[in-house]
Amino acid sequence: MTIHVPRGFRMSAVSCGIKQASGAKDVSLFVSDEPATAAGVYTTNLVVAAPVVLDRHRTPSSNIRAVVINSGNANACTGEQGMSDAEQMAELTAHAIGCQPEQVLVMSTGIIGHHLPMRKIAKGIGAATSALASHEDAFTAAAEGLMTTDTVRKMSSTEITVGGNVTRICGAAKGAGMIGPKMATMLSVVLTDARLSPQDAQEILARVADQTFNCISVEGHMSTNDSLLLLASGQAHAEILQGEGLQLFESELLSVCTELARAIANDGEGISHLIELHVRGCATRDDALAIAKTVANSALVKTAIAGNDPNWGRIVSAAGYAGVPFDPGKVALAINGTTLYDQGGPVAFDAADVSKQMKNNRDTLVELQFEDGDQEVRFWTCDLTAEYIHINADYHT
Amino acid sequence: MTIHVPRGFRMSAVSCGIKQASGAKDVSLFVSDEPATAAGVYTTNLVVAAPVVLDRHRTPSSNIRAVVINSGNANACTGEQGMSDAEQMAELTAHAIGCQPEQVLVMSTGIIGHHLPMRKIAKGIGAATSALASHEDAFTAAAEGLMTTDTVRKMSSTEITVGGNVTRICGAAKGAGMIGPKMATMLSVVLTDARLSPQDAQEILARVADQTFNCISVEGHMSTNDSLLLLASGQAHAEILQGEGLQLFESELLSVCTELARAIANDGEGISHLIELHVRGCATRDDALAIAKTVANSALVKTAIAGNDPNWGRIVSAAGYAGVPFDPGKVALAINGTTLYDQGGPVAFDAADVSKQMKNNRDTLVELQFEDGDQEVRFWTCDLTAEYIHINADYHT
Repeated sequence: MTIHVPRGFRMSAVSCGIKQASGAKDVSLFVSDEPATAAGVYTTNLVVAAPVVLDRHRTPSSNIRAVVINSGNANACTGEQGMSDAEQMAELTAHAIGCQPEQVLVMSTGIIGHHLPMRKIAKGIGAATSALASHEDAFTAAAEGLMTTDTVRKMSSTEITVGGNVTRICGAAKGAGMIGPKMATMLSVVLTDARLSPQDAQEILARVADQTFNCISVEGHMSTNDSLLLLASGQAHAEILQGEGLQLFESELLSVCTELARAIANDGEGISHLIELHVRGCATRDDALAIAKTVANSALVKTAIAGNDPNWGRIVSAAGYAGVPFDPGKVALAINGTTLYDQGGPVAFDAADVSKQMKNNRDTLVELQFEDGDQEVRFWTCDLTAEYIHINADYHT
Repeated sequence: MTIHVPRGFRMSAVSCGIKQASGAKDVSLFVSDEPATAAGVYTTNLVVAAPVVLDRHRTPSSNIRAVVINSGNANACTGEQGMSDAEQMAELTAHAIGCQPEQVLVMSTGIIGHHLPMRKIAKGIGAATSALASHEDAFTAAAEGLMTTDTVRKMSSTEITVGGNVTRICGAAKGAGMIGPKMATMLSVVLTDARLSPQDAQEILARVADQTFNCISVEGHMSTNDSLLLLASGQAHAEILQGEGLQLFESELLSVCTELARAIANDGEGISHLIELHVRGCATRDDALAIAKTVANSALVKTAIAGNDPNWGRIVSAAGYAGVPFDPGKVALAINGTTLYDQGGPVAFDAADVSKQMKNNRDTLVELQFEDGDQEVRFWTCDLTAEYIHINADYHT
């Protein structure tokens, strides 16, 4: 994968010892050489981690220099000490790179309810600052530093020409568990060298999040730490993007975030199938989303797909309790292109053949068609396997 | 367990071959010698099975003679043929015991989307009618005939004296899978020889269901077939119950239904822990219930408890996305009597000791205390184990 690193950024990641057992990278830095425009979208959980509280106050902004991230410890449910630790992470980073603490955003991910090992983190921030670089490998390292139970790095990148200027977008994300119905990233940082106003950046990011990171789930448990940040250095062009250029940028950002969001669902803990739900023909997009989420979060649907079972009954019955009014006699359902259910009743199909197709494909497409309007939604989730149970019954506090 | 069979009823169950593989009982009959008062509470799923449509029209009533039940096939998502099959089950039963088809209620449970094998069922109804009896064993057999993936029969019974008259209540239920947030019984039949008006019976049953069968979940998937029926023969006394007598009856019915509902959660597919959630200090009962359901349906909470992990972070963060406003700084949490979290922060506790207690007890009590009012709720659910996945990934359509 080619990573088009936007101009004006340096990245790094180091291991500071939070993930003592594995020795994996656990502190990442994303630094903008000049003050960047920044926007953020965060978890809507009432119980939020300290870094989310901090970042919410600091975005949108036209004056952000860095994002510092630790993995292995979420700094959530840690009270006043946690707030003070998050602030100290910003201060240490500001001191190291030479800016004000208010110009630094903070993210944390990992275990809930433990205080951060601040000495280790201070050392890590120092080491990460020394390692800052603008090349692809530096971005890749920073993406690695976000990971917890993720099995693969999640990155996406694009290069477009806007008004004659080459503009780059690249993003990193981590997911794997506690991926819930709203703001399901856990963490994602997207960099661009486009020049954006803070207001445009915020509006665009919120719209894109609604179609990407808010359309995925693993087990439907909403995290205390979910954060998506966009940093725009403005190095690609002199003027702030407007009109068609801004629209083009938004559509490219949507592509990048779709790839990242899909990658999170595709790396759900213990999964054997990535499930794409396509819910069509609803009166409103919210209706389509409510049905998609309800189907996506049904353990019975997820275990059926894990077992390569085209069990349309579990899917249709899950749609039935989504709280959305529809005519049960006008529902159609297809799995991987084969119609299993139409006009409210089962259709004759070769179950063995559909099951074989499911077994041979990691991707499972579930299409649910209603006749109540023209609104639709795409939603990504994963199946539920015994491996998920092992990961989550054995990962102790 | 002593079953106090109310006067005026006969029961039976036979194997008619729907559950061909196991040869287990799959047709149950509950017959009232005289027209009984009947009340029903049903699934709120939009996609409902044919027998639910039938029974909804027929309850409440003062003129019901029988309930006929088949297990192994849910007669759900079966269109017009399914409705006609449900009606035929009532007709066959009416013919066999000598009453009108409209005096018969019907229940089905099992696989979705397959037409009933009506020849087998017709034979089964005939055989079940011949086997009708009023003794305990007959009730026990009828309770067995309801089972699908249940590993134990679920029965509860009581005998009280109301106004000098001995009055009996006994109930049977089945559960195990597809046990969702509303009307989670799958199926339950409760018999009494109390004399009740149809209106009182319906009101009491709805109130009791809200505190019992609507307060349990296994995986939160709402079924298409859930039904709770109460049949009152009136043989215990001449006058319709009123005032104190009626209140006493309701409180006893609550006890019987609590035991049945708890038994369903305690027999959830693959479980190793029964979890009782006690949510207190909420502004409204609906708030408490919303928090309890959200915690109960979190796969991360359920897997933590399966792993004997006192992971308060998963419980508190689940409460945080229940959609109920509360002050995160005023939440307290205890597991099996040990406080783990108080005033919005973790409390020092012996994690190894709490984990050992959890491991040694099938019952896990989770107490969540808020400071927003005096409303509370008790909710029963179960943990999530790899065995649940095996049962549901391998149980094919």
